[in-house]
Amino acid sequence: MHKNDLDTPYVLIDLDKMEINLATMQANADSAGVSLRPHTKTHKMPILAHKQMDAGAIGITVAKLGEAEVMAAGGIKDILIAYPIIGEQKIDRLIRLAKQTNIIVAVDSYEAASAISRAASRDSNCQVGIAVEIDCGFKRVGVGPGDPALDLAKKIVQLPGIRFRGITTFAGHSYDTVNDKQLHDISAHEGHTAVETAHLLRENGIAVDIISVGSTPSAKYAAQIPGVTEIRPGTYIFGDIMQVANRAHLLQNCALTVKVTVISRPSADRAVVDAGTKVFTSDGDDSPFGTGRGYVVERPSLVLSWLTEEHGMVIVPPEHQDLAIGDTLEIIPIHACAVVNMVDEIAAVRDGKVEAIWPVWGRGKVR
Amino acid sequence: MHKNDLDTPYVLIDLDKMEINLATMQANADSAGVSLRPHTKTHKMPILAHKQMDAGAIGITVAKLGEAEVMAAGGIKDILIAYPIIGEQKIDRLIRLAKQTNIIVAVDSYEAASAISRAASRDSNCQVGIAVEIDCGFKRVGVGPGDPALDLAKKIVQLPGIRFRGITTFAGHSYDTVNDKQLHDISAHEGHTAVETAHLLRENGIAVDIISVGSTPSAKYAAQIPGVTEIRPGTYIFGDIMQVANRAHLLQNCALTVKVTVISRPSADRAVVDAGTKVFTSDGDDSPFGTGRGYVVERPSLVLSWLTEEHGMVIVPPEHQDLAIGDTLEIIPIHACAVVNMVDEIAAVRDGKVEAIWPVWGRGKVR
Repeated sequence: MHKNDLDTPYVLIDLDKMEINLATMQANADSAGVSLRPHTKTHKMPILAHKQMDAGAIGITVAKLGEAEVMAAGGIKDILIAYPIIGEQKIDRLIRLAKQTNIIVAVDSYEAASAISRAASRDSNCQVGIAVEIDCGFKRVGVGPGDPALDLAKKIVQLPGIRFRGITTFAGHSYDTVNDKQLHDISAHEGHTAVETAHLLRENGIAVDIISVGSTPSAKYAAQIPGVTEIRPGTYIFGDIMQVANRAHLLQNCALTVKVTVISRPSADRAVVDAGTKVFTSDGDDSPFGTGRGYVVERPSLVLSWLTEEHGMVIVPPEHQDLAIGDTLEIIPIHACAVVNMVDEIAAVRDGKVEAIWPVWGRGKVR
Repeated sequence: MHKNDLDTPYVLIDLDKMEINLATMQANADSAGVSLRPHTKTHKMPILAHKQMDAGAIGITVAKLGEAEVMAAGGIKDILIAYPIIGEQKIDRLIRLAKQTNIIVAVDSYEAASAISRAASRDSNCQVGIAVEIDCGFKRVGVGPGDPALDLAKKIVQLPGIRFRGITTFAGHSYDTVNDKQLHDISAHEGHTAVETAHLLRENGIAVDIISVGSTPSAKYAAQIPGVTEIRPGTYIFGDIMQVANRAHLLQNCALTVKVTVISRPSADRAVVDAGTKVFTSDGDDSPFGTGRGYVVERPSLVLSWLTEEHGMVIVPPEHQDLAIGDTLEIIPIHACAVVNMVDEIAAVRDGKVEAIWPVWGRGKVR
């Protein structure tokens, strides 16, 4: 089957580009002497987690327990859940999962750690890894670095049924930098903050084997900080306009596109395509290239100017007046992770041929 | 089962409020002497389409062919697809659908109409209804009102295999009005534009039996324009902050909420809940009440200040310092239709009891 035979809207992955991305990030990690534990929330597919493991990753990261269950069911054996697990129903599921698979949960409270400990210690076959999440400036979750993290870690290491593993952090503010210096500074701070907190724990007799930092934009710089043991980038596997805007991905290596069809040509300067926010989402700022809510491959002077749920409104410049109802376009989205979450399957394409249709088993696993 | 027993994040529908909303809009339509053809893209569930029919709707509206298939499979017999159907694969599906169910497709091009005609006329058991979509100022799809619509309708009525039904339009710009006068003017213009174009067609010997206008905000006013035959509001069934901001829904009648759990309390003034853009989406402007990306029922001074994919960041004022990890909140979203599209099932609740768990069969049907 050729990609032209796929009805639209359809999310496509260019396998050649994806393989470049996989190899490049693994090489970055290898050359920095750190492990790669990719965040699989970007693709949500066990098949791609296995490709990341085959390329050299030591395990994976997921955003939610439901994603961990999908990845474990897909045969992945080492999973960091970068999210506090709160509530009895989720802790029951976590314990079941930890009996099949090596699990680490990043927590930022004694409440979270102690509830896991209580459940895990009721079951002699279960040991759950725990990491302490620290806030390196993003102001999302995480305890403060230094003493607050030490205080929490001291309590956690006393708990039965769990194994303390180390420190995680995530510099989400690395997504909004305006130049390389700022990105470098945030990334270096992320790494240093994690390493310094880990040293403090070790000085207090607490074994720390993981010092884990996150994010595709910050990965390159944070990996260079001595002491960091692993990086958790996610979006690098596909890339998107948000990452290109962050100078963290090359436009020509963006592997994920949305194939769309022109369904209306209401006037010479306007076209409407058959995907809106239900595929592209409303996430993120417009493209820095002036191309709006995405980037039209091969016709980059088209502007995807605004979206409603099922419509994408395109400004058509004079040189693209040939654009007609029924024509198809491929558009790089602003935020690839979010796009994958909107669809039930994606097409893996090489040289125009559809090599596979993959189910997005991790889609919508918000619990 | 009580709603407290549902793990989070979970989308809840308050049945009492929903029933008020259903009855109110049907009464609006009845008193204006127009038919109600609700847009089911808001709920995406045959069960709720049937409730709308039971309340008096004459049929339903859907956004995409895939939604029409779901509704037809759920037993709905009169469906307006408010979207041009372009491409052979979709036209094949359309023809199959039109053999089971009464279908009208709103088109804005001869290309769309003639392709449907060619396919329909190959099959003697099939007749597809066609309406001409006109643009009443939203600048999305639609031919110009007046002569451009007449020119298209004249060609369409010549085509075999199809039946010309009338005029549709959608005043999407009614979502962004700042006062009732502006909303009234846009809505009245929507109705007048459709009616005047229909008169022009009739003067030219073309039978027009449907003059159909859209949108929850514009429904009340557009229905009053003499000659309008039907309204197609969607969001009214649940309401959301966007509709409240448009003065098109009462806050106390917002029937859809997202139940979330506090998973982190990083500081006295901050809490983090377990739903982000993967449930709430990034659609729409912040709440006009200063409550951010939603409205927290029963604790309205909490501000859902920003979202990442799986995290909702809440600003906690002094009076809510009791808010603790594990506590749950119910949040009215900015855009209810988009939230329904993010989940596989929702809970129908009355007086706190879960009366049903309904699958969102129409979720993600973008093709």
